[in-house]
Amino acid sequence: MNSGVEQAIAVRGLSCHAQAQTTDNDRRPHDKYNVGSMSCVFCDIAAGKLPTEIVWRSDDAVAFLDSRPLFPGHVLLVPATHVATLADLPAEQVGPLFQAVQKLESAVERALDAEGTFIAVNNRVSQSVPHLHIHIVPRRKGDGLKGFFWPRRAYDSEEHLRETAEKIRRAL
Amino acid sequence: MNSGVEQAIAVRGLSCHAQAQTTDNDRRPHDKYNVGSMSCVFCDIAAGKLPTEIVWRSDDAVAFLDSRPLFPGHVLLVPATHVATLADLPAEQVGPLFQAVQKLESAVERALDAEGTFIAVNNRVSQSVPHLHIHIVPRRKGDGLKGFFWPRRAYDSEEHLRETAEKIRRAL
Repeated sequence: MNSGVEQAIAVRGLSCHAQAQTTDNDRRPHDKYNVGSMSCVFCDIAAGKLPTEIVWRSDDAVAFLDSRPLFPGHVLLVPATHVATLADLPAEQVGPLFQAVQKLESAVERALDAEGTFIAVNNRVSQSVPHLHIHIVPRRKGDGLKGFFWPRRAYDSEEHLRETAEKIRRAL
Repeated sequence: MNSGVEQAIAVRGLSCHAQAQTTDNDRRPHDKYNVGSMSCVFCDIAAGKLPTEIVWRSDDAVAFLDSRPLFPGHVLLVPATHVATLADLPAEQVGPLFQAVQKLESAVERALDAEGTFIAVNNRVSQSVPHLHIHIVPRRKGDGLKGFFWPRRAYDSEEHLRETAEKIRRAL
């Protein structure tokens, strides 16, 4: 983050971190909102300022579909209040957030008729949005997922995206 | 799991699950203990029945080095009591277990002079040992980790393995 950006944040009183540059090859659809921006896309999603397929929310967290999923049903869970990494999350929020992961992994499996899930957090390296996010990805045997950075595919259509979100909401 | 194995477990009163077969390509060094076995390698590690480089333990969980790491310092954290998946973990254990992940990720970073970490859980698919385990993997920019199933390398030597464990213990 350059000092000009830091200064702008200080002046504007924003709590979120701007992203100075993307790292590695985990480029996300939201990158365009972060490069050189003063705001945080996941804070904006949590605050309802960006249209997103929310699948679950509590007072402290929100879960929504990644718009360019590893597989359809790939959910991102984020705390509503900005923290950068898992280690930065206040201790009292850890239990509720990962109980939400439990709930979401079961829902994603049932909703997508999956055989299992892949749960992942990138802390700093390969973390394109510097706001803690937990990936919850449906898995099937032989699905070809050799790794986290498998080329991503868009949903077939907006309808496909909405239907997938709805399946998960119903399963929760 | 075939009925013969289930029957043997019932007769022997074991709480752990035998693994009927390995899945996908996340074959682990411990596979040999599980295929057709009546015991669970991670229960054995938690009970101190298998020699392992333990880096942290509490009454409820144990963290140890994966002997064929993605990178040196790759830790596995498991609950001492057998559960298969994250969704199976009793709610009251979720907070303490992931607070341990927080503690471990910071320690692994400091101990290995890493820039970040990769935290992952495979539920059923690509889960070679059917006892919940959380991967805590040190990361550096440009480290070549394109995915979870990147070919694994053994430690250079037993000494290298022990020294790495010791670094993490000291950082905790």
